[in-house]
Amino acid sequence: MTELWRDPATPPEARVADLVSRMTTAEKVAQLSGIWWLDPDAGGMAPMLRESIGPQDTWDEVVADGLGQLTRTFGTAPLEPEEGLRILAQRQRDVMAGNRFGIPALAHEECLTGLAVWRATIYPAPLSWAASFDPDLVERMAGRIAGSMRSLGVHQGLAPVLDVVRDLRWGRVEETMGEDPHLAGVLASAYVRGLEQAGVVATLKHFVGYSASRAARNLAPVSMGPREIADVILPPFEMALRAGARSVMNSYTDIDGVPVAADPGLLSTLLRDRLGFAGTVASDYFSVAFLQTLHGVAGDLGEAAALALEAGIDVELPSTNAFGSPLLAALADGTVDEELVDRALSRVLLQKCELGLLDPGWAPVEPGPVDLDDAASRALARELAQRSIVLLANDGTLPLAPATRVAVVGPRADTPDAMLGCYSFPLHVLVHHPGVETGVAIPTVLESLAADLSTTYALGCPVLGGSDADIAEAAAVATDADVCVVVLGDQAGLFGKGTSGEGCDVPDLTLPGRQEELLEAVLATGTPVVAVLLVGRPYDLSRQADRLAAIVCGFFPGEEGGPALADVLTGRVNPSGRLPVGFPGAGSTQPSTYLAAPLAQRSGVSSVDPTPLFPFGHGLSYAAATWDAVSTANGPGWDTDGTCEVVVELANDADRPVSEVVQVYLHDRVASVVRPEQQLVAAVRVDLGPGDRGVVRLGLHADLTSFTGRDLVRLVEPGLVELRVGASSADIRAVLELELVGPARQVGVDRALEPTVAVEVR
Amino acid sequence: MTELWRDPATPPEARVADLVSRMTTAEKVAQLSGIWWLDPDAGGMAPMLRESIGPQDTWDEVVADGLGQLTRTFGTAPLEPEEGLRILAQRQRDVMAGNRFGIPALAHEECLTGLAVWRATIYPAPLSWAASFDPDLVERMAGRIAGSMRSLGVHQGLAPVLDVVRDLRWGRVEETMGEDPHLAGVLASAYVRGLEQAGVVATLKHFVGYSASRAARNLAPVSMGPREIADVILPPFEMALRAGARSVMNSYTDIDGVPVAADPGLLSTLLRDRLGFAGTVASDYFSVAFLQTLHGVAGDLGEAAALALEAGIDVELPSTNAFGSPLLAALADGTVDEELVDRALSRVLLQKCELGLLDPGWAPVEPGPVDLDDAASRALARELAQRSIVLLANDGTLPLAPATRVAVVGPRADTPDAMLGCYSFPLHVLVHHPGVETGVAIPTVLESLAADLSTTYALGCPVLGGSDADIAEAAAVATDADVCVVVLGDQAGLFGKGTSGEGCDVPDLTLPGRQEELLEAVLATGTPVVAVLLVGRPYDLSRQADRLAAIVCGFFPGEEGGPALADVLTGRVNPSGRLPVGFPGAGSTQPSTYLAAPLAQRSGVSSVDPTPLFPFGHGLSYAAATWDAVSTANGPGWDTDGTCEVVVELANDADRPVSEVVQVYLHDRVASVVRPEQQLVAAVRVDLGPGDRGVVRLGLHADLTSFTGRDLVRLVEPGLVELRVGASSADIRAVLELELVGPARQVGVDRALEPTVAVEVR
Repeated sequence: MTELWRDPATPPEARVADLVSRMTTAEKVAQLSGIWWLDPDAGGMAPMLRESIGPQDTWDEVVADGLGQLTRTFGTAPLEPEEGLRILAQRQRDVMAGNRFGIPALAHEECLTGLAVWRATIYPAPLSWAASFDPDLVERMAGRIAGSMRSLGVHQGLAPVLDVVRDLRWGRVEETMGEDPHLAGVLASAYVRGLEQAGVVATLKHFVGYSASRAARNLAPVSMGPREIADVILPPFEMALRAGARSVMNSYTDIDGVPVAADPGLLSTLLRDRLGFAGTVASDYFSVAFLQTLHGVAGDLGEAAALALEAGIDVELPSTNAFGSPLLAALADGTVDEELVDRALSRVLLQKCELGLLDPGWAPVEPGPVDLDDAASRALARELAQRSIVLLANDGTLPLAPATRVAVVGPRADTPDAMLGCYSFPLHVLVHHPGVETGVAIPTVLESLAADLSTTYALGCPVLGGSDADIAEAAAVATDADVCVVVLGDQAGLFGKGTSGEGCDVPDLTLPGRQEELLEAVLATGTPVVAVLLVGRPYDLSRQADRLAAIVCGFFPGEEGGPALADVLTGRVNPSGRLPVGFPGAGSTQPSTYLAAPLAQRSGVSSVDPTPLFPFGHGLSYAAATWDAVSTANGPGWDTDGTCEVVVELANDADRPVSEVVQVYLHDRVASVVRPEQQLVAAVRVDLGPGDRGVVRLGLHADLTSFTGRDLVRLVEPGLVELRVGASSADIRAVLELELVGPARQVGVDRALEPTVAVEVR
Repeated sequence: MTELWRDPATPPEARVADLVSRMTTAEKVAQLSGIWWLDPDAGGMAPMLRESIGPQDTWDEVVADGLGQLTRTFGTAPLEPEEGLRILAQRQRDVMAGNRFGIPALAHEECLTGLAVWRATIYPAPLSWAASFDPDLVERMAGRIAGSMRSLGVHQGLAPVLDVVRDLRWGRVEETMGEDPHLAGVLASAYVRGLEQAGVVATLKHFVGYSASRAARNLAPVSMGPREIADVILPPFEMALRAGARSVMNSYTDIDGVPVAADPGLLSTLLRDRLGFAGTVASDYFSVAFLQTLHGVAGDLGEAAALALEAGIDVELPSTNAFGSPLLAALADGTVDEELVDRALSRVLLQKCELGLLDPGWAPVEPGPVDLDDAASRALARELAQRSIVLLANDGTLPLAPATRVAVVGPRADTPDAMLGCYSFPLHVLVHHPGVETGVAIPTVLESLAADLSTTYALGCPVLGGSDADIAEAAAVATDADVCVVVLGDQAGLFGKGTSGEGCDVPDLTLPGRQEELLEAVLATGTPVVAVLLVGRPYDLSRQADRLAAIVCGFFPGEEGGPALADVLTGRVNPSGRLPVGFPGAGSTQPSTYLAAPLAQRSGVSSVDPTPLFPFGHGLSYAAATWDAVSTANGPGWDTDGTCEVVVELANDADRPVSEVVQVYLHDRVASVVRPEQQLVAAVRVDLGPGDRGVVRLGLHADLTSFTGRDLVRLVEPGLVELRVGASSADIRAVLELELVGPARQVGVDRALEPTVAVEVR
């Protein structure tokens, strides 16, 4: 007779309960961790990472009682996909053979800017998704990423990153969707739908508070109260959970002294009891052990394991530092209750069950040829890149006419790296494999422009360092051209290997190295200068902005970023990206984002003026939509439990396609707590062909005005509010004055988080 | 028959209750505000201030129903003290005549760096008090300040500032006692005792959280949780309340969205119910109105008044913007309960009663000659300045031998302003009275050095701006000297009038203006360079420190700062100040202070290294104490309700007096929440004559190891701790490993806040 847990016809919960009852303690614990299995002799890995993983058991020992997860089988070294498939299949067979139940491991990979595997499409970085304001494209992208993962037998992707930017100096800004929770939530939801609807587990990270570390230093403590967490940090997670994400990863940081990895208030009471999450919580890499080694809240690794399990972490990644022998020892001496193990185990097995990993006949994907960068994926990468590039300023020099003689200079002009975020395979992994090719074609800006225009080139300076002579050479090249395109920006990388990326925080927002000197040198030539920024965060251009002919910004636009930039610079594509992060003004300081109370933005009371050079939501086009009318269908009253319909009428009077991002900001005049000066509550991209007219209808439920009140309960309060409708946070085309009428109303976690949107183009 | 309230033999509470029962609503409300009475025709005031005060009633209207307080009668313009006395006496007579009860006003003045009145002694700024680590001197100073106030008929002083520095960019760092709550609390308590024991009401400000404003911008929102408030921000207030402070001023900021001025949780539940405060809460200037105009939590000024009264603010300063007609209107229409007015009124009248202002026969101080800057005060100012100056580095160039030919250059070398904080009368008030002399003698560094040495002088550059020619001239002067003393630093001022001071926040810690260029120019001469900093905050010297012969720092050392510096530079005085704020290292960022969790201080995980150039507690001497032994009398065990005695034995083997600051830092190895890497729990200054031996006995109750645990309850937890005993936070001479034994113990607000200290010198 078939054991209950093996029977696909039995409800999953019953299968899991049956299986749990059959397991020894060692078998249970083995399911609660993922292993980053490293060939002891292989090179090609960051020393810090090897050190964190520590000495490993033999492979036979690793699989002796089963194994929860396999970490980055494909994403650790440049493997041909077919070779990776062969390795994963063998490892899965070993795992299955190693445990009495024949349960395979769940395989996870990184997939932030595309699947982080050799030869897979590298899409634009998340800050570019945000700049596109285009959830449909992001969902399609995630769907294609998930398809690649399925074809490789990978079950879970460690993306997206939902951290709301609070300090632009942070290295991981490039991995986020910017400084607004609504925008981040809309795009994260799109990404999650794309992954989950293709059957791949999406992992929301980092829950919560990571982006607000002190002075933007990676892992540093977070000073934050519960209202800011609820109103700024949490909404993207709420939205993405509704979109179906089945895994959550904890934040490394402590908030007000309590490490998130040891906080049941966040990982259980909030995430599960209040928000109803039923999936798995995976530890960010090594963060269980960090409770002892970095936070000092555990005396040994067994205590660390106990704290993490009790808080609600189900899976330790990517080692068994704590959830291995230390946890087993703590269980043996009774300091950890086995019920905590069973709780985590049930969640882990339920997910494996849902993924079919407990079904009879499950078998790994067999090796075979796989194309991870097909033409359709490249085309999608191109389209997303085109729509994410932001034209910040333009005196008419752009677009470049076909006959223009262009000097292309700068450290980011002729390198594929300029297109890539720190979680792209080349920058994440290949840096440890010098000489290995990128795996996918990544045309540079220079190569892409040279296809259309007469170009000359000089480096000018590297991202960091450089010589006077090279800067002078770039100036000479610029002097001899009609226009100089100077391509500046970041080298993304990890932990000291970049100017942007994980661990690559910066003390200020000055352009890295001598790039500002290079910029001044080419400006001094008198040749019109177009600055192209390829960056992971905004930089201070306040000293040059009014002398530049144009400024174009791409946030690591991916493998097709070069051609997409050429599309924009030559005018083949009408630029339409919008800033998901503000650019700093002269003398401004960090932390500072647009989403802030009036006193965070007011000049006069402080000698430091926080006014941005280019504000949140800003972006120009060569031709733009005409705004015909903005109105509200339901008069000045807005029931505190009702919906306000906002209608925006646009027209394209130009002779080329235009794309507008209609943005609606809420301004709450008086409330029981301090409210942001304005906050985004709706953003809709509208594409109009020549002669088109478009009508956008937004249904804004009063829930969208809610906030966390005095008693930490979420409220809609009656009173006057403004809906500021415009093309950026500082380009408001209409202010709708509305009065929320009716009783103050408490709202729950089921509140409306997004407006309804209907766009009619005719 | 005498009315009960007039009878000094009746208990104050009964007198107040009687008086309250006799008052009309208008008379009650009139007691709840202070008035900054401005002659409508007089000039000499910051426009922003005049605007905030708004249109004023006539003087007859002001006094018609009585008046709570009179603001800065002396401190508004350069008045001879006798003239001020005449004006105050007349105003008091008008106030008394204006109300049925004949109650005079309570007169308050600023007194942060001494009484902020023309011709009064200007003491070192509070950051200098902290650098002195000398509570006895600070108490004596405050006693003298209080004596001056009594002689002028002033009842209340708006000092000290207890804000713990969280971000060195903040303009008001100079007004604080640095980045450690223990140090700030010890010195604030000393100041409070000095004031209160002389009968003057001390005002603790700013309650709470002001120093942690976002990006260090004045008034900007504060992101902070309850644990950080309890463990970092609150302790100095707890200590100073025990020292007898009778008034508290609210912080302007909001914390996690709730403005402190509207927060009953902080101003009533915490301050009064928990901490037992029974005095008055005065609004920081205009902060009641700001609830409407800046925070947006009140729809009009009547609502603002209601919020503030309900929160626990008793007195609006320095106008009746909210606690005037708006409050009266709200009372009339019933939206404010008169019981709230009575509550505040009772506190106000109780304080007036205690001050004798309700007694029959009370009369204002009659005009007469007053010396506010007598020789004893100047001597005390000199001594405090001497002991506050910090020798940061010295290659042996200091002290300067008598025959040394010294080039004295730099923007702070020959100006009295260099000695003064932003609350000194010259910089606070006289800036609006150009041409008026400072009122007290303030010798400059140049004048003071020229008394001892052969000096030449060049400006080099102003604090901000300057010319290449002037910098070159300074270099030329340096070239021709044996040693160059370059005096750099801040111009203190308010709101755009300074590089340090209220509203004068900075984007980074680079020396202001072209001063770093000047420093490089004199360094380039090859002449040994001694940098003297006269500053309100630390600056980044990381690029020059290893090339400087010596670095000396004074935090606005007051009217005798010039002579005190000459004492130190020539070696008449052995320098003994210690840093109450760390100096930033190369590439470090803000916010950052020494009091932080390990992850705030760790390098490796972030490319930004927070290691300071000169750490908290650092300071050199020409001759230093010998550390003979550090021990604990009671073995390795420390009862969780017991006292640990630490014994430090020092000797002076030098031929001149030495002064050591013995510092004890707690390191808690494992705790239930994240703890600072180390925190100061004791600091004792020990003065030793040649040949002296000193024994310091510190009794540290286990309460000093307590912290706010998971449930926001303060705990002593058992387990291993270290007491690190040393001469700075980075110069630890002995580590005492101790084990707290016994049960975890909850501690209350009556916990031990300070160690017992016994110093024996023989």
